[in-house]
Amino acid sequence: MNLLTSPLLTDLYQLTMMQGYVDGGMHEEAVFEFYVRSLPKTRGFLVSAGLETLLAYIEDLRFSEEELNYITGTGRFSKALLDYLANFRFHGDVYAMPEGTVFFENEPVVRVVAPMPEAQLVETRLINILHFEILVASKAARCVLAADDKAILVDFGLRRAHGAEAGLLAARAAYIAGFVSTSTVFAESLFGIPISGTMAHSYVEAHENELEAFLSFGLANPNNTTLLIDTYDVRKGAEKAVEAAKKLKERGINVRAVRLDSGDLLALSKDVRQILNESGLTDIRIFASGNLDEYLIYDLMSQGAPINGFGVGTKLDTSEDAPYLECAYKLMEYAGKPRFKKSQGKATIPGRKQVFRELKDETMVRDILTTEGDGVEGVPLLEKVMSGGRRISEPKGLKEIAAYTRSQLKALPAHFKALETKPAYPVKISPALSRLRKEIERQER
Amino acid sequence: MNLLTSPLLTDLYQLTMMQGYVDGGMHEEAVFEFYVRSLPKTRGFLVSAGLETLLAYIEDLRFSEEELNYITGTGRFSKALLDYLANFRFHGDVYAMPEGTVFFENEPVVRVVAPMPEAQLVETRLINILHFEILVASKAARCVLAADDKAILVDFGLRRAHGAEAGLLAARAAYIAGFVSTSTVFAESLFGIPISGTMAHSYVEAHENELEAFLSFGLANPNNTTLLIDTYDVRKGAEKAVEAAKKLKERGINVRAVRLDSGDLLALSKDVRQILNESGLTDIRIFASGNLDEYLIYDLMSQGAPINGFGVGTKLDTSEDAPYLECAYKLMEYAGKPRFKKSQGKATIPGRKQVFRELKDETMVRDILTTEGDGVEGVPLLEKVMSGGRRISEPKGLKEIAAYTRSQLKALPAHFKALETKPAYPVKISPALSRLRKEIERQER
Repeated sequence: MNLLTSPLLTDLYQLTMMQGYVDGGMHEEAVFEFYVRSLPKTRGFLVSAGLETLLAYIEDLRFSEEELNYITGTGRFSKALLDYLANFRFHGDVYAMPEGTVFFENEPVVRVVAPMPEAQLVETRLINILHFEILVASKAARCVLAADDKAILVDFGLRRAHGAEAGLLAARAAYIAGFVSTSTVFAESLFGIPISGTMAHSYVEAHENELEAFLSFGLANPNNTTLLIDTYDVRKGAEKAVEAAKKLKERGINVRAVRLDSGDLLALSKDVRQILNESGLTDIRIFASGNLDEYLIYDLMSQGAPINGFGVGTKLDTSEDAPYLECAYKLMEYAGKPRFKKSQGKATIPGRKQVFRELKDETMVRDILTTEGDGVEGVPLLEKVMSGGRRISEPKGLKEIAAYTRSQLKALPAHFKALETKPAYPVKISPALSRLRKEIERQER
Repeated sequence: MNLLTSPLLTDLYQLTMMQGYVDGGMHEEAVFEFYVRSLPKTRGFLVSAGLETLLAYIEDLRFSEEELNYITGTGRFSKALLDYLANFRFHGDVYAMPEGTVFFENEPVVRVVAPMPEAQLVETRLINILHFEILVASKAARCVLAADDKAILVDFGLRRAHGAEAGLLAARAAYIAGFVSTSTVFAESLFGIPISGTMAHSYVEAHENELEAFLSFGLANPNNTTLLIDTYDVRKGAEKAVEAAKKLKERGINVRAVRLDSGDLLALSKDVRQILNESGLTDIRIFASGNLDEYLIYDLMSQGAPINGFGVGTKLDTSEDAPYLECAYKLMEYAGKPRFKKSQGKATIPGRKQVFRELKDETMVRDILTTEGDGVEGVPLLEKVMSGGRRISEPKGLKEIAAYTRSQLKALPAHFKALETKPAYPVKISPALSRLRKEIERQER
């Protein structure tokens, strides 16, 4: 059993409902849509992500013998369901916004069209993947906008991400949103994301003094020398870095950067820049880290901090100011009939939907949420990505997705890119969809 | 390469520092401690968790041929380091608080004593595991205290957990803290945690009406029938549940519970209880879910809501009000000498430490943080759990850990168990440790 690809990554109720569907012969076509009900207060837009991770999961979804034995052993399910699971594979179609698309509340990001039990089984892991990658890509995009191309951003978050998969998927989502690299080694072997890194305080502490630590690190890593200078005193640390850089230069080694990880980053970066410049080391860059997020990055950049790069960790990988999204994967149609629920605060808009985006001079004007076949103006955002359980095209490279995200962010008007955004971006519900909604809600259940 | 057990689940700087340690022959004994610098504002205590997950990872840590090939291919490292990694295994000792121990700021939860490169390599994943399980166990313990034995708690969080591993580890951490079950199927096969579940709105929507859905679900799941009654209108849904329960009873099937997932849970649960009781269905329990946390559970229980169980999902698995902890894994000693850093706001207390807990009449009075060998009064919290890279004893069962957590929470005075807790629990730094700190900080680096 693989902890990340297993069909047992699901809620028990998916299996008990499948028992009901299989018993009742309810294999007709179901349409589910994944969307975010409302944006967190601190988000003016979201960035779609996780699609490729999701499609890979769905395409290969099978029950192994070990998994079937486990399910049999629970004693909860009939032979009919066990037989069904033994032959299970996903045969459905999937429609989705391309990864990197900017989107808003109530807009379907992914639509699954499949026989009911298949569409039901994938719910839990589908939400689990999309929710988290969207969460991090959206937070990362805010950091990228705050850095405003004046500094590079690196993901440092694995250690405080919620588990290993979160760290890996966060590295992926951040790269999609415009981060240049990650400190997570596995993310390079898995996704091809460039890795980068510096040194830790422990390395400095383990040596007799800072200078010795800096020299030994430079000799051991001649092509990748960043020196951490805040272990004892930043200004003294910067002077030691100057001394080390000069000695290393004699050995043909160029120190690339120094890192600050604590204290008043604005004042310290200015002092350190001055110390480096006065020694003629204008090429050595300054890298900063330590509980950073888009707000701090924005403040530092707008105050002219001479910082060339930021390591963003905890607050990125946990999306600290908005650690979850009000997202849902809801039944919109079954056996040809639109379906809905009207639970208080969680009512759905029934039917298969499409989002059309109106642009003017390559700038986004508004989105229209409507029924799938409605011929309104604008660019449709959902496209077919899986047919009969197989992906339609090769996975896109992450670089290509990152470039697309960049173009999406460029098309978003400045107001919605600001750290504080009110009013919200206009998403209009079309007359056709409003009519459908009223009609369905009138029906007695 | 396994995404959860690989040594590549590390930051690049661990490898570049290891290059320096191996080049410099720095294999002497290092002592690192994992602790939480300060508690989040909304936490009066934390619960240790994740130790068994961590020890299993460390004990089996090896570089596979594929992983070595990847590292070689990066072109960043010397043959000396690659040879070292090819033979790598963890040979160190680990000391830890037992899982389920209540603890506070600055108290070491885990101490690693190992040759420097080994202790360094495990840092990232060690923090990644301990941080998250402590985070969720601590949040879950608050929910358990809020429910006050009047209602059971079930983890519903996989879908909005940050990735699959987060969902699985959250199920484990919540169970340790007193949750009775989880909806995550894989958590039963992996950890033996009981699973439970209800039904989703889609099941109701897919049927022609609620009654039909309830009947078909009960027939398909005769031993596990919980009916979701808020898809259209809760009170009407409750009446349909009554009708279904009576019909199912004729077939020998007992409906166990109804579930509410939206709206005013206090008012609705009272109405539903009345509807059920008036029909003589006093045995059917009421289960509630929907963005719950310890605050809502406390409010509902203290207002006498007739709710017998809560499904807690998103806000548990993301620890929504405190999605990360200010935790660290810091070098405390190397080659027999205490080490420290004094980075602003992140200074360490040097040396190997122990926590002694003073109890009076089985109630916690205060903790004393001191040097390892200091003979102060109280119960020492850290014990040796790994020797020479091997676990000393068999893993404890989760039930046993959960019972221990319960006894720990019982020993914690009421004030610190409240949802809002000020002042903080007293953790005193001993004179011996203060002297050591001053002595080390005076040394010139």
